[in-house]
Amino acid sequence: MTAMEMTMHDSVHVPGFLGNSVASGIKSGGGRDLSLISSEVPARVAGVFTTNRFKAAPVVLDMERIKKGRAQAVVVNSGNANAATGDEGHRDAAAMSKAISERLGIEDELVLVASTGIIGERLPIEKIIRAGGPLVEGLSALGIPAVAEGIMTTDRFPKIETRRCSAGGKEITVCGIAKGAGMIEPNMATMLTFILTDADIDQACLAGVFRESADRSFNAITVDGCMSTNDTAIMLANGVARNSPVSETSGGFAGFREALFDVMESLARSIVRDGEGATKLIEVVVEGAKTSGDARTIAYAIAHSNLVKTAFFGEDPNWGRIISAAGSTAVPFPTDSLELYIEDIPLFIHGRGVPGKEAAEIMKRASMRILVRLGMGEERFRVYTSDLSHEYVDINALYRS
Amino acid sequence: MTAMEMTMHDSVHVPGFLGNSVASGIKSGGGRDLSLISSEVPARVAGVFTTNRFKAAPVVLDMERIKKGRAQAVVVNSGNANAATGDEGHRDAAAMSKAISERLGIEDELVLVASTGIIGERLPIEKIIRAGGPLVEGLSALGIPAVAEGIMTTDRFPKIETRRCSAGGKEITVCGIAKGAGMIEPNMATMLTFILTDADIDQACLAGVFRESADRSFNAITVDGCMSTNDTAIMLANGVARNSPVSETSGGFAGFREALFDVMESLARSIVRDGEGATKLIEVVVEGAKTSGDARTIAYAIAHSNLVKTAFFGEDPNWGRIISAAGSTAVPFPTDSLELYIEDIPLFIHGRGVPGKEAAEIMKRASMRILVRLGMGEERFRVYTSDLSHEYVDINALYRS
Repeated sequence: MTAMEMTMHDSVHVPGFLGNSVASGIKSGGGRDLSLISSEVPARVAGVFTTNRFKAAPVVLDMERIKKGRAQAVVVNSGNANAATGDEGHRDAAAMSKAISERLGIEDELVLVASTGIIGERLPIEKIIRAGGPLVEGLSALGIPAVAEGIMTTDRFPKIETRRCSAGGKEITVCGIAKGAGMIEPNMATMLTFILTDADIDQACLAGVFRESADRSFNAITVDGCMSTNDTAIMLANGVARNSPVSETSGGFAGFREALFDVMESLARSIVRDGEGATKLIEVVVEGAKTSGDARTIAYAIAHSNLVKTAFFGEDPNWGRIISAAGSTAVPFPTDSLELYIEDIPLFIHGRGVPGKEAAEIMKRASMRILVRLGMGEERFRVYTSDLSHEYVDINALYRS
Repeated sequence: MTAMEMTMHDSVHVPGFLGNSVASGIKSGGGRDLSLISSEVPARVAGVFTTNRFKAAPVVLDMERIKKGRAQAVVVNSGNANAATGDEGHRDAAAMSKAISERLGIEDELVLVASTGIIGERLPIEKIIRAGGPLVEGLSALGIPAVAEGIMTTDRFPKIETRRCSAGGKEITVCGIAKGAGMIEPNMATMLTFILTDADIDQACLAGVFRESADRSFNAITVDGCMSTNDTAIMLANGVARNSPVSETSGGFAGFREALFDVMESLARSIVRDGEGATKLIEVVVEGAKTSGDARTIAYAIAHSNLVKTAFFGEDPNWGRIISAAGSTAVPFPTDSLELYIEDIPLFIHGRGVPGKEAAEIMKRASMRILVRLGMGEERFRVYTSDLSHEYVDINALYRS
């Protein structure tokens, strides 16, 4: 972190939330690896979790607990994913929760657990229990940035975003932290995100707007198309702003929704930017589809294509690879009407490539937008992806499980 | 080619078929780039073509022509894909056919056309017409290996396989040639395959058995999951063996089917082995699925995973990446019953990784088999894939469109 970033992060404060992160000895390097977010009062909670069949023990525990709609704390370890660890793994996740709930003096059911790191190895639960004391004692209203750092694994930088808005007569804070990046160690790219707000918000509204924002942000990025056993996004709304509750029909809803989406999209972009070996951030937009599902299918076909991703790494405006990826799905479209642009520069129109040198200049940028127009309807989808570089191969081939 | 391979290839002879390949000047290096396979008599024909929305002009032409069930010649150029070339592209494909049919003195409708190479550039049709004379004049019963060489683009070696079997009281030859390999130049991995047999075979039987073999071979391999605009597989059966016609109920069918499948699977394996930057050939087998579609979905999720492919390049028996890829699809299975093996060595059983050093030794081999048992049913699917290496990134990033 640069000094300026530290200053920015130090000013992060979400009323009613405390944070802390300590080094418990899970990571061999001695860095922060055990983190805690705690609300002064029970908060409403919403969650989005990996759809992988192999769900890590903490994911299984959280999915059950958030059904009640309330949570007060989230304890997170990095360095070990507690995934593919059998019955002991479930017991370890429960023990991790208990170590924190007892020290916080709250119901155990109000604690959520997240883990990220190497899979297939048991959690060093004794180290976690031992570090629970200092972890809880050090909780601070200014501790959220420490958590953003403590949940990192192979991330190159901490990811934290804060927005403020007005809703129900009060100023509301929406703050998000995230980790992404890496399949080096851990085995898999685990994405963890925690969104904190002091807003009072209707439960159904919270669940709906969080799911919508997740679909538009974290579910619309790809580094390598691989889905982790541990992916977790949790939102806590503790209501200490004492606003009149936000609901889908309340006046402040639009602003709140925009702030939330802005936080989550910014975090999602940071995750792609920090993707393993990524040198470029590429926004793939598909417009003019009959359904958003069609647009999504084509956008992902382009964003996942290794041929497209290596072309971006090579800074080559290779329209042939992009249209071929677009044409490879089951979504029908007339190939003559497809238009392809990089930023405002046409690459392919009326069934032909468009000659020109401007595109090659744009390819040298660190971020750029690819636009595909299908000419079939009004629906669109956007996905962020990264290029495929030598560093990606290095990171993932040289890591030993 | 080694001397031994040359000797083997020189002995390739399919009764009633002639071949030749010449340098027409399409390839700047001056290599063979225009090839012709011709049957002495019209043959029954079956074809399997790319499902990409962007189909190259020769694919569109062939798909129409094979509806009649008869063909007598296939003319193939390498160095230019005649794809994304608009109306001129269709006219060029037709002109290429006409140049050959006139010289062969056969109906134009009996000629099929295939192209592979750079996309978005017009075919140098004058060069092709000019080379048509020497191409036809040089046709020879021993010319099939020259065609296998002439259709290559970035392939490191020609691919040709021959099997013999008995059917309908005669000895039958089944010979296949193929090209795969490359997305360097051309823009895309175009796979071309031509299967020649002197068998007399019922038309419906031919179409059925060719489609089945294609699904089990070329449609069950992946180098990078990208689908070309030009992928073409054509089978010609000229009947000069004068066997009593093969049908699905005839005695010789099983042997013919096995010979055909063996030819096509061997070609498919060669294509993966020759995949860009490939250092390893990996057979991914999924067993115990409820449907073969389920098995296929999971097998491809593993075979396409960049995390799995880089782990193989790094010779790391990373079971976590493999089971996570298996769990990432919509196919349900109980995670506790999944078993994962590399060759005969268990990597993951009863929800846990299995410690041991034998797997790491197997990973050093040039080819190996991954077996996933779902324990859900009786269906299976097998796919061949390659690892993801630095050379893949080099080849595809450094190529300029």
